[in-house]
Amino acid sequence: MASSHGYPFEKRHCLSIADFHRPDIESLLSLGEHYLDLSVQKSSERSVLAGKTLVNLFFENSTRTQKSFELAGRRLGADVINMNVANSSVKKGETLLDTAATLNAMNPDILVVRHGASGAPALLSQKVECSVINAGDGMHEHPTQALLDALTLRQAFNGDFGGIRIAICGDIAHSRVARSNVQLLNMLGCDVRLVGPPTLIPSNADRWGADVFHDMETGLAGCDVVMMLRLQLERMNGAFVPSKREYFHFYGLDRTKLGFAKPGALVMHPGPMNRGVEISSDIADDPDISLITQQVETGVAMRMGILHALSDAQDGIA
Amino acid sequence: MASSHGYPFEKRHCLSIADFHRPDIESLLSLGEHYLDLSVQKSSERSVLAGKTLVNLFFENSTRTQKSFELAGRRLGADVINMNVANSSVKKGETLLDTAATLNAMNPDILVVRHGASGAPALLSQKVECSVINAGDGMHEHPTQALLDALTLRQAFNGDFGGIRIAICGDIAHSRVARSNVQLLNMLGCDVRLVGPPTLIPSNADRWGADVFHDMETGLAGCDVVMMLRLQLERMNGAFVPSKREYFHFYGLDRTKLGFAKPGALVMHPGPMNRGVEISSDIADDPDISLITQQVETGVAMRMGILHALSDAQDGIA
Amino acid sequence: MASSHGYPFEKRHCLSIADFHRPDIESLLSLGEHYLDLSVQKSSERSVLAGKTLVNLFFENSTRTQKSFELAGRRLGADVINMNVANSSVKKGETLLDTAATLNAMNPDILVVRHGASGAPALLSQKVECSVINAGDGMHEHPTQALLDALTLRQAFNGDFGGIRIAICGDIAHSRVARSNVQLLNMLGCDVRLVGPPTLIPSNADRWGADVFHDMETGLAGCDVVMMLRLQLERMNGAFVPSKREYFHFYGLDRTKLGFAKPGALVMHPGPMNRGVEISSDIADDPDISLITQQVETGVAMRMGILHALSDAQDGIA
Repeated sequence: MASSHGYPFEKRHCLSIADFHRPDIESLLSLGEHYLDLSVQKSSERSVLAGKTLVNLFFENSTRTQKSFELAGRRLGADVINMNVANSSVKKGETLLDTAATLNAMNPDILVVRHGASGAPALLSQKVECSVINAGDGMHEHPTQALLDALTLRQAFNGDFGGIRIAICGDIAHSRVARSNVQLLNMLGCDVRLVGPPTLIPSNADRWGADVFHDMETGLAGCDVVMMLRLQLERMNGAFVPSKREYFHFYGLDRTKLGFAKPGALVMHPGPMNRGVEISSDIADDPDISLITQQVETGVAMRMGILHALSDAQDGIA
Repeated sequence: MASSHGYPFEKRHCLSIADFHRPDIESLLSLGEHYLDLSVQKSSERSVLAGKTLVNLFFENSTRTQKSFELAGRRLGADVINMNVANSSVKKGETLLDTAATLNAMNPDILVVRHGASGAPALLSQKVECSVINAGDGMHEHPTQALLDALTLRQAFNGDFGGIRIAICGDIAHSRVARSNVQLLNMLGCDVRLVGPPTLIPSNADRWGADVFHDMETGLAGCDVVMMLRLQLERMNGAFVPSKREYFHFYGLDRTKLGFAKPGALVMHPGPMNRGVEISSDIADDPDISLITQQVETGVAMRMGILHALSDAQDGIA
Repeated sequence: MASSHGYPFEKRHCLSIADFHRPDIESLLSLGEHYLDLSVQKSSERSVLAGKTLVNLFFENSTRTQKSFELAGRRLGADVINMNVANSSVKKGETLLDTAATLNAMNPDILVVRHGASGAPALLSQKVECSVINAGDGMHEHPTQALLDALTLRQAFNGDFGGIRIAICGDIAHSRVARSNVQLLNMLGCDVRLVGPPTLIPSNADRWGADVFHDMETGLAGCDVVMMLRLQLERMNGAFVPSKREYFHFYGLDRTKLGFAKPGALVMHPGPMNRGVEISSDIADDPDISLITQQVETGVAMRMGILHALSDAQDGIA
C-alpha cells in the first residue's frame, strides 16, 4: 500500500492549503479515494500506522472532526490519544509552548490540533518533532475539510474539477472552511464564487481569486454546486445579521434560491447545520441534491489518506 | 466461536426486551455465559469484532454502563469510540437525526445509545445502517441490564428460572430497569412482583403481568430474590416521597424487611446505590446475600455476548 | 523481555516509595531505562500487556499524568480505559468503596488512581484484586513521579546517585512530589535538602532525612541539582505567600539564584510550571540547564517499566 501514490509526497505537516502544490493535492486525493472503499478501510490497512501514536489535541470542542480523526487513526492501526484542553486553561502563549514541549516529550508521530487562534498549529509545528495536522485554527484554515470537500466533488463530477462552477455562500468572513476551500478549488481549476451580505464578506475577498456577489440570484447563476456555510449563532445578535428570519429570507438556501443555480445543482455543507437559518430541511435531506452525508463519509477516508501520506513521508516512502 | 449459539439469532438491534422471543434470549444468555470465563474474556476472542467499530453515544452520563460496553467491545477486538453528548446541545428532534446521519456516514458497525427520551434509540435505528443497542432510554427500557440480571439469576439458580419468585421494589414508575426486567423475567417463567408506594407504581402496572404490593411485608413474602431499584434523588423532594428517612423506614431494605422473604433470599441492585435510602449497607455488603458485584461482573460478559450475537447476525453467521 | 530485570520484583502494588526496598527500585529503574529506547517503546513490546486491562481512575484532573499512563499502557498492548470522576460525585467514603467494588467486578489487571485524599489508593488496593498504582494522593505520595525523576537523574549522572546533592525548593508542605522524592533520593544515597519559606515547610521536615533551609543562597550552595516545585495558585492568597512578585523575588529560580548552586547545576520541575512565579523562563527553556522535557520523556518510559514489572509479578515472572 505504501506506494499507492506515485508522486513523492514529502510534506511533513498539513497546516494550510497554501503549503501544497497541485501534485501534493492529487496525491492526497488519490490516497483518500483508496480509503473510500469500506472493505479496505475496515480490514486490510491496520499496519499503516502500527506502532505510531496520534494525539488529538483539541482546544475547541468538535465531536465531529475529532471523532473522524480518531476513527481514521484507529482504522490504520495507530494508538489514538484524545486530549481535550479547555480554552480556560490556556491563558498565555507560553502555556501553548509548554503544552508543545510536554507533548513532544511523549514522542507522538502525528499531532492533530484544533485551536481558536489562527496560526497556533503552525507555531506548534515549529516546536515539535512530529507531523502536525491543522484541524481548524481560528478564522484561518481548515485544510482537511477542504480536502474532503474536494474528494467529495471529485467523486460527484468524475474528477473533472475544471467543469465545476461553485458558489460558497454565507458567513465568508469568519469561515476557515471558506478560506481553505477557495484556495484549493482555485488550484484545482474550479470557477469559485463567494456569496453573502457585505457584513460577512471580508473587504479583501476580491483578491482571493473568487468573484464576490451580495445576492443569491446572481451569485448562484450557472452554478453546479452551492456550498453553504454554518452561521455561528453569535453572529445573529444584530451586529452582522439583523435576525435569523431575515437572514434566511435573503441568504438561506431553499428550493427557490437553488432554482437560480444550474438544473441538477448539488448542495454541500460542512456541518453541523442550522436548519431554517442557512439551509432548509427539504434541501438538506434530499438525497438527489445534498452531498452532506457524503462529506462526512468522505471525511474519514480523506483523513486516512492524509495520515497515510504523512506517515509515509516520515518513513521516507514515496 | 461463531457457532457457540445454536439458535439462529437474526435480530439486527437490541432495543427492547419486547422485540425478543424466548429462543433469542436463551441464545444471548448462553453467549453471555460463555464470556463469564475470564480467561476466555481476556485472551482468546479478539477476532470476534476485529475491524469493527463500536460507537458509544451517550446523551446521559453513565460511567458504569459506558465503561462496561467499552470494555466488552475492546475485549472482543473492536475499535471503540466514545461520544459523550451534553443534553444541552440537543435541543431539537432534528439534531438527533443529524447526529444519526453524521454517525451513519462514519460507518460504525454497532451503535450503543443512552438517551433521556424514550424511543430515541429506536428512532436512531431507523436512520442508520448499523446495529443499535439501547443502553437506557428515558423511562422506557434498559434491555442489557435486564439480560445481565437474568444471567446473574441463571448462575445463582442453576438455570431454573421457573422456581424463582422475585420482588422488584421501589421507584417502579420511573424505572426503565423495572420495565425491561418485568418483561424478561415473565418470559423466562419467574413469578414477578412489584412493591412500592402508590406514588411510585404506575397506574397500569397491574397489566404488566406482575402482582402489585404497597408494603414490603406482604410483597416480599415467599420471595427468593429481592431486587431493589435506585431512588433518584430528585424524587425525594416531597412530591413522591416525604423524606429519605421515611422512605427508608417503609421501603428501604434492611435485615428486618429481608426477613419477610424466604430464608436465604438473595438481593440485587442495578447500582449505583443510595445506601441508607433504598438499601442498608450491611445487606449490600454481605457476600452471602448480595448479588450486586456479580451483576457488574456479569454485565461485561453479557454485553460481550450481545455484541457477539449482533455481529454474527450482521455477518450472516448463526 | 520478561526476564530483563534480574531481581525478583514481587510487589503487587505501587502505592508509596516507603513500600519499596532498594533492589525493587533498581529493578524498576532498569526496566524504565530499557523503555527509554524509542524503537523498543514503539514497536516490539506490544505483547507485554496483551489481553490485560488498565483502568485510569482519576478523581482529580491531570492531563499530563493520565496521558502518560495511557500512552505507556497502549504501547505495551493493554486495553486502556479512562475514567474521569468529578470530585463532586464522591461525597462519602462509602462511594469510593462502591466504585472499588464496581471496578473490581470489571476485572481490570491494573488500576491507576489519582485522588485528592491521602491514602485513597491504598484503601482501594485492599478492596480490589488487581494491582494498584498511586498516581498522586492528596499531599501524601506520587511515587511514579519520584521514580521518573530518579531515572532522569540516573541518565544525567551516569548512575552515580551518591555524588548528587539536590535541593527541593518551594511549597514542600503541600507537595506529594516532595514527599516521594525525599524518600527515594535518600534511599539512593543522594544528599537531599529542602528549601522554602517557613510557611511552606512542614514542622516535622527535619525528621524526613533532609536538611532544611529557608533561603535559596545557603540552600543551593554546592548543589548539583535544583528541583523546583509548582506553587499552587490557591497558596498565593496571602495565607502562605504574600504575593507572586514577592515569592519570585525570594524563592523563584532565576540566573542569580542558580548561581548559588554548583557551576553546571541542572534544574528539574514536575510541571506544569508557573513561569515567573517559581521559575524564570530563561532557566526553564535553556536546554543546557533544564531537565524538564527529559522528565516528561522519561515519564512514559518509567511508567512502561512499572506496568511491566507489576504485570510480571502478577504472572509470577521474575
